[in-house]
Amino acid sequence: MENFTFYAPTYFAFGDGAESKAGELVKRFGGSKVLIHYGGGSVVRSGLLDRVKDSLTRSGLSFLELGGVKPNPRSGLVYEGIELCRKESIDFILAVGGGSTIDSSKAIAAGTVYDGDFWDFYEGKEVTEALPIGTILTIAAAGSEGSPDSVITKEEGMIKRGASGEAYRPKFSILNPALTETLSAYQTACGITDIMAHLYERYLTNTSNVETTDRMIEGLLLAMIHEGAKVMEDLTDYDARANIMWAGMMAHNNSCGVGRSQDWTSHNIEHELSALYDCAHGAGLAVTMPAVFTYTMNHDINRFAKIAVRVWGCQMDFEHPEKTAKAGIEALRSFLVSIGMPKNFAELGAKEEDISKLADICCNGSEGADGKLYGFTTLEQKDVEAIYRLML
Amino acid sequence: MENFTFYAPTYFAFGDGAESKAGELVKRFGGSKVLIHYGGGSVVRSGLLDRVKDSLTRSGLSFLELGGVKPNPRSGLVYEGIELCRKESIDFILAVGGGSTIDSSKAIAAGTVYDGDFWDFYEGKEVTEALPIGTILTIAAAGSEGSPDSVITKEEGMIKRGASGEAYRPKFSILNPALTETLSAYQTACGITDIMAHLYERYLTNTSNVETTDRMIEGLLLAMIHEGAKVMEDLTDYDARANIMWAGMMAHNNSCGVGRSQDWTSHNIEHELSALYDCAHGAGLAVTMPAVFTYTMNHDINRFAKIAVRVWGCQMDFEHPEKTAKAGIEALRSFLVSIGMPKNFAELGAKEEDISKLADICCNGSEGADGKLYGFTTLEQKDVEAIYRLML
Repeated sequence: MENFTFYAPTYFAFGDGAESKAGELVKRFGGSKVLIHYGGGSVVRSGLLDRVKDSLTRSGLSFLELGGVKPNPRSGLVYEGIELCRKESIDFILAVGGGSTIDSSKAIAAGTVYDGDFWDFYEGKEVTEALPIGTILTIAAAGSEGSPDSVITKEEGMIKRGASGEAYRPKFSILNPALTETLSAYQTACGITDIMAHLYERYLTNTSNVETTDRMIEGLLLAMIHEGAKVMEDLTDYDARANIMWAGMMAHNNSCGVGRSQDWTSHNIEHELSALYDCAHGAGLAVTMPAVFTYTMNHDINRFAKIAVRVWGCQMDFEHPEKTAKAGIEALRSFLVSIGMPKNFAELGAKEEDISKLADICCNGSEGADGKLYGFTTLEQKDVEAIYRLML
Repeated sequence: MENFTFYAPTYFAFGDGAESKAGELVKRFGGSKVLIHYGGGSVVRSGLLDRVKDSLTRSGLSFLELGGVKPNPRSGLVYEGIELCRKESIDFILAVGGGSTIDSSKAIAAGTVYDGDFWDFYEGKEVTEALPIGTILTIAAAGSEGSPDSVITKEEGMIKRGASGEAYRPKFSILNPALTETLSAYQTACGITDIMAHLYERYLTNTSNVETTDRMIEGLLLAMIHEGAKVMEDLTDYDARANIMWAGMMAHNNSCGVGRSQDWTSHNIEHELSALYDCAHGAGLAVTMPAVFTYTMNHDINRFAKIAVRVWGCQMDFEHPEKTAKAGIEALRSFLVSIGMPKNFAELGAKEEDISKLADICCNGSEGADGKLYGFTTLEQKDVEAIYRLML
């Protein structure tokens, strides 16, 4: 196991009705003038926004609103938010929504207290300072409610990049599974896929002797498969929603990823798809993961066989372990298809003729890029192209 | 799943040599005048205490020392520590040792800033305020390095009781697996048993639909069984020590115990054994757990069958699930014996003639006790007696 530090000081209020604590929690963590940041109409239509505003008012807090966050959140709204926060001396940002809203809030929180362009953080600068953030989660997926990460898309060139830093951990997150019951089957399945990807990306490691985190990841994946299937049968199953919500947080707060190298090539390769075609991140991952794993599996057949046996219940073929490894990847693909996820470029709305452009942006699009992706294996541009071709 | 809140804001520095960060971390979390609290000679002999003092000095901190913590830490030293902290205006307590030292530090930390008798907290008063605490862990066992809990024994009547409260979460914990390599086989096995007990006590729940935390617990138990066996073969296996150390923290920081009722009757029943005979807590648990589980298994055969199949690899007997449940308990007992733990009263040094006294203190010894133990099942004094008899 490698050395590490781990610090996850987010306060979680979990359960039906927990959003009524919003005001009290903002106050506890030092906010007085709040920006409520959210996406589209569902937060408004469902009455959630009104309940949140009531809670802030009851706690004697003043607030402004900034809606309009889109899936794959854009830099344009971030700049708008930063300007607003500075002008109005906002001292706390409350994200009401899913990963996109939380990630947009994080970017605004860092940008407001930074002299330069907030995009610097998405080009690799560590986030060390930001306004405090709280979240009220409405989609179990991104894990941003308990993570130090944020992903933003820059309109110019449609470049999607991540930033990280301890200042990005929310001070509190309100997790009410009932708020996720109105999500469509498709949105729900995208969330399940994203959570499973966060687990797979941590599982694919080059660090040996990491049985504790291996077993934690396997356990969370087993829970996701079981509860994922349950919720797809009944979208209003509170307990399944609750299990998925906690698993989604645990999958990405990194307690199961410490002390080991991680992958993240599937996320990197997917980001170009959702940036270019504006498809859902989870749907993009459903198509990307099996392709990446098929391409890279020979790097460590044993690891893929292990997850196949332990998570997917495949029989170990001791004479041909690569068959077991492959069966595990096929089991993942079948599961994702069974919950309604796309399985190829066509179903995703992606185009074969864009492949070389996608691979180029993926490998060379960031400042400091050297034409390669580093993770479980090192991928050159031709490898990334070949992976996109496996998705056809 | 039940509603819950979860807040675990402890900073972990994990890895070989991490204790060199002690000074820097005390400063980061606001300490200036530190009480270094520790147990016996090993912390001194190994040179660890000197390294810690060097680190504090390098950071410009002043400090005092208070050694002498014993296993099953006593209230007498706590009172001494409280007096010292008040007299010397100590503002940070640094525990260097295992669970006993950390628990003693927590009691001193709460008692110093409290007007009444610190024992009030161990009679049920919630701990809401305490001096900040940091830890340098030398035994993976109690999980106190990441938990809001502390257990102290009152000399008068040898009463062993626990206290809890968010103010008891350490500000930081330094986890260096190499520091645990000098532990004896017996101490190591006691730690493994304690960690497994923390997982079992959370597993035994009356809350339904808690698959995510079930799977996390099962995963951590599987890791403990694997890594526990490895470390018993080679006590200097750093990686096995590291896996156990992280599993020990995760087992008790409660991320795998949220939203579900928990048991803790094994701990309660064991506490009277270690209080009266001063045996190691882990050794007491090794004898107690199989007895408690055998006695209570009919309350939920299915849950015991599930852990038997998923954790111990037992075959499910669909016609006689109670046989599977029992096989799981036997597998636990065999594993504990295989790592050198005692299996009955005699091996523990406990006496049959004390049973009615033990059961009486267990059920009636605390202020507000009503003669029963509440947990997975409700146990009356006669049940507790019967459980002690199963240990003969």
